[in-house]
Amino acid sequence: MRDLFHDELDEIGAGVAEMIRLVAVAMEQATGALLDGDLNRAERVIEADGRVDHLRTDLEDRAFQMIARQQPVATDLRVLVTTLHLVADLERMGDLALHVAKIARLRFPELAVPEEARDVIKQMGDVAHSLVLKVGDVVDGRDISLANAIEAEDDSMDALRRKLFTLVLSPRWAHGTEAAIDMTLLGRYYERYADHAVAVARRTIFIVTGERPVPAPNGVSPLT
Amino acid sequence: MRDLFHDELDEIGAGVAEMIRLVAVAMEQATGALLDGDLNRAERVIEADGRVDHLRTDLEDRAFQMIARQQPVATDLRVLVTTLHLVADLERMGDLALHVAKIARLRFPELAVPEEARDVIKQMGDVAHSLVLKVGDVVDGRDISLANAIEAEDDSMDALRRKLFTLVLSPRWAHGTEAAIDMTLLGRYYERYADHAVAVARRTIFIVTGERPVPAPNGVSPLT
Repeated sequence: MRDLFHDELDEIGAGVAEMIRLVAVAMEQATGALLDGDLNRAERVIEADGRVDHLRTDLEDRAFQMIARQQPVATDLRVLVTTLHLVADLERMGDLALHVAKIARLRFPELAVPEEARDVIKQMGDVAHSLVLKVGDVVDGRDISLANAIEAEDDSMDALRRKLFTLVLSPRWAHGTEAAIDMTLLGRYYERYADHAVAVARRTIFIVTGERPVPAPNGVSPLT
Repeated sequence: MRDLFHDELDEIGAGVAEMIRLVAVAMEQATGALLDGDLNRAERVIEADGRVDHLRTDLEDRAFQMIARQQPVATDLRVLVTTLHLVADLERMGDLALHVAKIARLRFPELAVPEEARDVIKQMGDVAHSLVLKVGDVVDGRDISLANAIEAEDDSMDALRRKLFTLVLSPRWAHGTEAAIDMTLLGRYYERYADHAVAVARRTIFIVTGERPVPAPNGVSPLT
């Protein structure tokens, strides 16, 4: 029979799963808004971020109160402390999706992404989405067998960011400095989104294995 | 008479103060390396970041063990949980200083920052340094009277970032796309460094007042 404590822990877990779902949708929609120049979709992503922020605050408070009142030990305490970290990463992923949406909004009715960069940005959006779905599977089912696949997708994201820089720095780039700045920021936002997703997966795996993950990536060096 | 628990808490506090000192020096030295094109200084910043990462892991472990073993309540628990957040922010500030140093290294023996952007970047470095010193005072002395000054400096940083964009987007910008990308990334690194510094101050103030701070800034909208 489950006790009240573990029911509460399950509720917090469901909240984390909901945050993962929301930030997955946010980045997917932000990428769509960006590539289609869809102002309404961009606005919806921007408005929806408040829900992610609210969930973070709520889950952080609940985890803190459970630690304070129930004084859990061992794995239960580790799950709660890890929750504090996960919700911080997930809130940040929501912010990064929001930043992508804001670039779409800023350039409307123009398209922010020039034709020759569309494919790379689309791939960055695809990798972000595939990554966050895998992270959801890790967190839901504590399925640590996805760890390697997640690291590989993080590497793909870094490679795509380098490809984006190569395009922008090519002598054939004919879209000026403003578009170059947009591509630089977009590359950074997708890369950081992936970094935070990986951090969530690593933290969750730490709970299962008890082995501290290697440090989170600093992000690729600029332009290298 | 102090008990063992509070002695340990003081040691953790000293570790956080040391992290603040290290990330303050890191950004100051990274800015110097960037503006002077000083490769050795850039290398030293990059090497020194390991110490910040190590302190973060160590303090996180110690805070977790104290929660697990001593089951503190009320303010003591809040201090320990806040420590988990502070060290994450401080580690990230170290990473951002490292990113600045890497741009200096990447462009060596050239100067990464064109003449007309030097003044803005120097001011960003100055604001970053002044900000982190104030944050150190807040954390050391629990002096929450600096809260307003810290928010004002964060606003200055955002204004400097906008100024940097204005320079880069000016028709007079004659340094091409590569330098534009560097300025975009530098602007982002200084801004995020300031955001994390503000988050540290807000978290600390939360311990003193018990009032949850307003949400951390998402960062300025790109180019606006």
